[in-house]
Amino acid sequence: MNSKPIRAAVVGYGNIGRFTVEALEAAPDFEIAGIVRRSAAHIPSEIAQYPVVTDITMLNDVDVAILATPTREVETHALHCLAAGINTVDSFDIHTSIVDLRRSLDAAAKAAGRVSVISAGWDPGSDSIVRTLLEAAAPKGLTHTNFGPGMSMGHTVCVKSKPGVKDALSMTMPKGDGMHRRMVYVELEDGASLTDVTRAVKEDPYFASDETHVMAVESVDAVKDMGHGVHMVRKGVSGRTQNQRFEFSMSINNPALTAQILVAVARASMRLQPGAYTMIEIPVIDLLPGDRENIIGHLV
Amino acid sequence: MNSKPIRAAVVGYGNIGRFTVEALEAAPDFEIAGIVRRSAAHIPSEIAQYPVVTDITMLNDVDVAILATPTREVETHALHCLAAGINTVDSFDIHTSIVDLRRSLDAAAKAAGRVSVISAGWDPGSDSIVRTLLEAAAPKGLTHTNFGPGMSMGHTVCVKSKPGVKDALSMTMPKGDGMHRRMVYVELEDGASLTDVTRAVKEDPYFASDETHVMAVESVDAVKDMGHGVHMVRKGVSGRTQNQRFEFSMSINNPALTAQILVAVARASMRLQPGAYTMIEIPVIDLLPGDRENIIGHLV
Repeated sequence: MNSKPIRAAVVGYGNIGRFTVEALEAAPDFEIAGIVRRSAAHIPSEIAQYPVVTDITMLNDVDVAILATPTREVETHALHCLAAGINTVDSFDIHTSIVDLRRSLDAAAKAAGRVSVISAGWDPGSDSIVRTLLEAAAPKGLTHTNFGPGMSMGHTVCVKSKPGVKDALSMTMPKGDGMHRRMVYVELEDGASLTDVTRAVKEDPYFASDETHVMAVESVDAVKDMGHGVHMVRKGVSGRTQNQRFEFSMSINNPALTAQILVAVARASMRLQPGAYTMIEIPVIDLLPGDRENIIGHLV
Repeated sequence: MNSKPIRAAVVGYGNIGRFTVEALEAAPDFEIAGIVRRSAAHIPSEIAQYPVVTDITMLNDVDVAILATPTREVETHALHCLAAGINTVDSFDIHTSIVDLRRSLDAAAKAAGRVSVISAGWDPGSDSIVRTLLEAAAPKGLTHTNFGPGMSMGHTVCVKSKPGVKDALSMTMPKGDGMHRRMVYVELEDGASLTDVTRAVKEDPYFASDETHVMAVESVDAVKDMGHGVHMVRKGVSGRTQNQRFEFSMSINNPALTAQILVAVARASMRLQPGAYTMIEIPVIDLLPGDRENIIGHLV
C-alpha cells in the first residue's frame, strides 16, 4: 500500500455527505481535500477546517470525488469530475438504470484514464455482493431481499409532493418473501383531508403495487428514525443437492453505512484499471486498507 | 463469455470429488475432461462415462483441475498441474498456512502463465468474502464466526486415530461468540475403556482448548449427517456511528456446497491474470456464468 494519503473530495453535504466526512476522518489512509456545495456561504462548524468550494476544480490534488448528491444528479457530477481527471464513487440507487449509467461512465472513465465505482451503498452495493455470492453457492433457487423496517427516501419525497401534505415519512415494512408494506405518516396542512391525501398516495405508481396505510400524525419529526434493515434469504440447489439455506441480515444507520461503503470503494478505486465498475466487479480485499497478506492471514 | 465449454478435471474421488462431478454436470458452461484417482480400477458406475486416469497429464485439453484431495496433498497436486499448464482450484482449509500456500502457488502459477485459486470452500471461502465485506462496512468492531452444528472432518480423523476407537464422529456445536463445544461419538473396540478414550481425546491439542464431551454409541454410522452450518455475527462502527449489526447464517450440505464453490472458482480462474488468489481477491461476478451486463442488471 502507498503510504501517501488518498485525497478525497465530498460532493454534496446533506445526510450522506456529513456521514462521509465522519467516515473519512475515521479512515487511516485518507485526507479530506475539500467539500463541494452549491453555495460556499454558511459553512457548518464541523467542516470549517476544510476548503469548501462550489466546483471541484477549485480544489487541489483530488484523487477521488465521493458523490453525495441526489441520485438523479450523479451522472452529471461524475462526468464533470472524470473530465477533470478525478476518480468518482457514488451510491446511485435506481436499480433499472444501473447498466446504462455504467456504460456512460465507463466510456468517460476510460477516456480520462480514471475509475468510477457506481451504485456503491448497501442496496445496491454490499447487498449486491451477497446476492451474487449466494447465487454462486446455490445456482438454482430464489433469493428474497426484505427491506426494513426503515424510512424509504424515494417514497417519502413522493408523499411530500402531494397537495395538503406539510411533512411525511414513508416507512418500508417487510412482510416476508420480498413483499413489503408501506406505512405512511403525514403531517397535514390546515384544512387538508386525510381521505384525499390517502387516495392520492395510493394511486401513485410508487405505492400502487404495495399494501399501503396512510396515517395522520401531529409531528413527523417525532417519529423519524434513520435506522434501517435488510433480511435476505436464499434457498437453493448446490449441484444436485436441494435445500441449501442462507440468510443475511443487518440492522444499521442508513446514511452512516452508505457513507462508510462509499469511502471503502473510494479506496478500491485507486487500485483498479480505468473504467466504470459496480461493487460485484471489485475484489472485496480492495475495500480494506493495509497489507494484503496481512488481510488474507486474518480474514480468509 | 466464451461459448466453448471449460474443460475441468476432478482430482480425487472421495466425498468432495463426487459432489464436484454433480456440480460440473449441473453447470451450463463446463465439460468433464476426466477424473484422476490413485487407481483406475473399480470405477463407480456414475463416472463410467468419463476417462478415469491416475495422472492428470493422461487427459486431453484440461483447462482447470479441481483438487478434491486431502488438504495436506493440495500443494503437491497443484504444483504438478500448474507445471503441466493447467489452472488449479482447491479448498485448502488450514487457516494458518494459507499465506504460505498462496506464495508457493503464486510463483508456480506465474512461471507457468496459469491461475491457482486456493482455500475456496465455505470457510475458508465464501465466509471469507462475507467477513471481509463486513469489515469494510463497519471497520471497527468484532466478528464472531460460529460453526455448526455439524461434523468436523479434522477432529473426527483425530478421534479415529486413538487406541480402542473403531469409528468416531466429532460434532462442532456453537456456544455463541465464536466459542464451540465438541460432542464426540465413539464406537469402541471390544474391551476398550470409554474412560481411557475420553482422556486421550481431551488431552489431544485438537480438543484441549474446547469443552469436550465423549460418548459411546452402538453405531456411529447411525448418527452421521453431512449437514453443517455457520452463524457469523458482526457488531461494529461505521464512521463514528456505533452499533451497526450484521448477521450471516447458513444451513447446508457441507461437501455439496464446497464442491459448488470449487466449480464457481474454476470458472473464475479462466478470467484472471496468472498468479495465485484467495476468494477475497476475486470479483464475485466472475463466479457466475453468463453475460456481465445481464448479471449486473439482475443482481446489483
